[in-house]
Amino acid sequence: MNLQAVFNIAEICAQWGVQQVVLSPGSRCAPLTLAFARHPKIQVRTISDERAAAFIGLGIALTTRRPVVLVCTSGTAALNYAPAVAEAFYQQVPLLVITADRPAEWIDQLDGQTIRQENIYGRHIKKSFSFPSEGEYADAIWYGQRMLSEALLETEAYPPGPVHINVPLREPFYPKPDEPIHFEKNVKVIRELPNAYELSSSQINLLKFASAGYQKILVLAGQGPYEEELVQALQAFARNTGAVIVADVIANLHEIPGVCRYQDIYLAGKNTPAAQDLQPDLLITFGLSNISKNLKLFLRAYPPQAHWHLQPAGTVADPFQSLTQIIRTTPLSFFSALRGTHYRAIRNYRHIWQQQEKQANVYLKEFLHQPVFNEFTGYFQVINNLPQNVNLHLANSMAVRYANIIGLKPQQQVVVFANRGTSGIDGCTSTAVGSALSSANLTILITGDLAFFYDRNGLWHNYLPPNLRIVLLNNQGGGIFRLIDGPRQQPELAEFFETHQALNAEQTAKDFKMAYFPCRNLPELTNQLPHFWQAGPGILEIFTSSPENADFFNAFKQGPPFKIT
Amino acid sequence: MNLQAVFNIAEICAQWGVQQVVLSPGSRCAPLTLAFARHPKIQVRTISDERAAAFIGLGIALTTRRPVVLVCTSGTAALNYAPAVAEAFYQQVPLLVITADRPAEWIDQLDGQTIRQENIYGRHIKKSFSFPSEGEYADAIWYGQRMLSEALLETEAYPPGPVHINVPLREPFYPKPDEPIHFEKNVKVIRELPNAYELSSSQINLLKFASAGYQKILVLAGQGPYEEELVQALQAFARNTGAVIVADVIANLHEIPGVCRYQDIYLAGKNTPAAQDLQPDLLITFGLSNISKNLKLFLRAYPPQAHWHLQPAGTVADPFQSLTQIIRTTPLSFFSALRGTHYRAIRNYRHIWQQQEKQANVYLKEFLHQPVFNEFTGYFQVINNLPQNVNLHLANSMAVRYANIIGLKPQQQVVVFANRGTSGIDGCTSTAVGSALSSANLTILITGDLAFFYDRNGLWHNYLPPNLRIVLLNNQGGGIFRLIDGPRQQPELAEFFETHQALNAEQTAKDFKMAYFPCRNLPELTNQLPHFWQAGPGILEIFTSSPENADFFNAFKQGPPFKIT
Repeated sequence: MNLQAVFNIAEICAQWGVQQVVLSPGSRCAPLTLAFARHPKIQVRTISDERAAAFIGLGIALTTRRPVVLVCTSGTAALNYAPAVAEAFYQQVPLLVITADRPAEWIDQLDGQTIRQENIYGRHIKKSFSFPSEGEYADAIWYGQRMLSEALLETEAYPPGPVHINVPLREPFYPKPDEPIHFEKNVKVIRELPNAYELSSSQINLLKFASAGYQKILVLAGQGPYEEELVQALQAFARNTGAVIVADVIANLHEIPGVCRYQDIYLAGKNTPAAQDLQPDLLITFGLSNISKNLKLFLRAYPPQAHWHLQPAGTVADPFQSLTQIIRTTPLSFFSALRGTHYRAIRNYRHIWQQQEKQANVYLKEFLHQPVFNEFTGYFQVINNLPQNVNLHLANSMAVRYANIIGLKPQQQVVVFANRGTSGIDGCTSTAVGSALSSANLTILITGDLAFFYDRNGLWHNYLPPNLRIVLLNNQGGGIFRLIDGPRQQPELAEFFETHQALNAEQTAKDFKMAYFPCRNLPELTNQLPHFWQAGPGILEIFTSSPENADFFNAFKQGPPFKIT
Repeated sequence: MNLQAVFNIAEICAQWGVQQVVLSPGSRCAPLTLAFARHPKIQVRTISDERAAAFIGLGIALTTRRPVVLVCTSGTAALNYAPAVAEAFYQQVPLLVITADRPAEWIDQLDGQTIRQENIYGRHIKKSFSFPSEGEYADAIWYGQRMLSEALLETEAYPPGPVHINVPLREPFYPKPDEPIHFEKNVKVIRELPNAYELSSSQINLLKFASAGYQKILVLAGQGPYEEELVQALQAFARNTGAVIVADVIANLHEIPGVCRYQDIYLAGKNTPAAQDLQPDLLITFGLSNISKNLKLFLRAYPPQAHWHLQPAGTVADPFQSLTQIIRTTPLSFFSALRGTHYRAIRNYRHIWQQQEKQANVYLKEFLHQPVFNEFTGYFQVINNLPQNVNLHLANSMAVRYANIIGLKPQQQVVVFANRGTSGIDGCTSTAVGSALSSANLTILITGDLAFFYDRNGLWHNYLPPNLRIVLLNNQGGGIFRLIDGPRQQPELAEFFETHQALNAEQTAKDFKMAYFPCRNLPELTNQLPHFWQAGPGILEIFTSSPENADFFNAFKQGPPFKIT
């Protein structure tokens, strides 16, 4: 086997601009491990549990906004990557997954750690490659080098996502003792000028003309990374036009003054009060998913006359069943171009939404300032006492939902992350760890006990980030099921839905040498929070009772301005 | 949605003979959860980490020798099953994987926990089905019911393995409060008379005639479950014919007197002493993989004139590159039919192998009775002091290799399990837990620290089996890499191959309320072992130094009868 072709993989990645690699240990992948570990321009970390390793890579890619390379050995290692690969696919995060493999002739021959790795990620990968194993032919060398550029470019081509290269390797895998690895500087690297996806002036005129025909314009942002330019463009667009902007917490638009953030409180599907007044004529959407089910049900019940979706390329979803027009541009281009449009009489529309926001804000504050302790009031304290300029990771299930109800304020300077591509609980801790590893900011994960213990191996490595803080809401099970009518009313609730679990994080904190702050009441929580933020890597565990949480949350949902029948 | 069709899935499984179901909690799968949980003839358990849940199901299926049903919700839950599904595929274990899904129209519409689940297990599944979601049509009802039988039959059709049914479900998922679930007794169930795969008398005569042409006949067993009838048939065949039987520890043939078990010690690939005398004329193989690399290299270097492989159906591997004849029958039929064959002058062949065995046995005992403490001598003590009549689970990496070198004695009455289908470390603990849950016997797992902490969630549920004992060889990393020439000689050994890890199991034992026995020297180990076997569920942790382990193991490999150059 021509190991030079394998060593050059690291060189091409480095020249192309890859800076971060996450490895998992193995023998078959040894030439890749050695090449990346020895390359002077690449930072590598090794994580034993491949499921956690892949989510840590995802967290790094989300935070650095650059492709991260994952490297694992042959066999089920590659399958343990699959949950993070699917999340990267749906959250549109650039990952290059390199899996070592046996050569084709040794597949299905009863060898250890040998499975069918070609196309192993099925339909959750942008593209899959097989690295050539005949490295002695000039054409094969060209093919292998070209493949790396093609794969890396594909991770970033809109929509970004994961790409897989399977690398069959023959023994020997190791250079001789003390034999240096040579990186060939003249490897082939192909670059691509990114597409601007800008609207033409005739398109802009057309859209201005078309949108001017609507009175009530609602802009709804789905999940997206924090982008200062987009925040400014949207702010200007809303100010100039009077359009309403609605954004869940994962849209990272909470810096915009007047952005609607409490829609989870005052929208109630078909039973929304003032629904006809809130109903848009034109709905303009961009970004990925929304959290608020109330919002989705409201828009499906009160559809707009037209629904424009902004997306540079790729298949477009129709989550409100109202889509009429796909516009192939970036949100930044669109809102910058249309910010000067004059609309008729939509000021009042904005005023109606703002009134709902104010009422919800008052209600929320009053309700959550009650001197009772449960995960909702505890969560409110945490959000209100967040330090500034932090990464906030919201685990799936209730952690992300509470945050969306409570909302973030413009001045908090928080960048929000959540694995809402697939909404799994399987990698939330690891993703936060990856984020902390690649950011100078304090990185805070808020998570439930099921998500936390599910992904405990996200902490099992030698890179515990000093800037990591984990707020663990421990109600000893999947408390969300007690908040939903269906399972709450079944006799199987406790055993088969909520799934009681007995762990707390005390031993885990000991295992991983993290500071540990248990909280069993509000004064403990408010007293400990400042120390917790100041301490090194730590876990603050908020113990609550699942039935009490459910009673309180249900009471919240009963009161004004909720009008759910 | 016609929920009755979904409830009937549980009824058909029960009538067909399924007794064990492993669920993971979720909302989309609620109708399946309720149906299985309420069915009077089915035992269900709920495990939160789907990766662990699937391996626990695998352990139950391995132990009961009956198909186990797995049920999970939509999204990446299904992907977390993938490592165990691949292991079941290659180890030929019957699993019916039922995944809840959204209906087709809601795929890729930015809904939570929604991925592309059809054919999600790619090429590591025997068959994949989509359950019909139009339960109001008579043909669709027939199709859905027929599908369950087809899927269950396929799990057991030779070679057994995993089968997938994806079940798209529409809301509402839950019956009304207090509304009973009705199981329709007249559901359709198709059964199949299992194929006997017996040889005809003319085939038997042909094989007797053909085999009589060879003088040195070697029977080599790959991994297989313990089968008393096969043990007896092989014993009679060897006694009558003088054929040599070689079996790794995972072949479960250690009860046969005179079976060769030390081949890992005296075979040395191309450099095997007395290789020409040991070389077979006719090699007869059956079962799955072999552990011993020395054996594989020996057979490739000294190939037989003919290699017959016994396998009732399916694609046949050629691991020694010597395969000449596939025989479509069961090992039991073959060896029963040919036990009376008379062979020429092969008694001496058996004698040569037996001499090697004796020498290896003496060497092994002398070497391992040295009063030094490391994981090899500790392992030897554990194996020599095993209680009788136990299930022994050997985790991948060094745990299974040490056991194969040490070997088991006929009188020990041990049934051996190991995930050698894919040889992953990702589910060894969970598989042992599944085995313990479905067996009255003491179930002992011997595992290394990487495998143990990788799969710590195998213990995270409410079903800790009282008969589970875990022997944990903790050398604080992947010590196997220090035993292999390639990585041992690289400067990256400690960081990127061995991957030092700092955990011990003390906190884990506390977390899961298991007895804990730390051992740091031989007297501690020998004193504690009897108490450990007698205690309830527990962890015995053997602390050793990886460099000392490597020095000792390398010294073992240098001495006679090893002759590796």
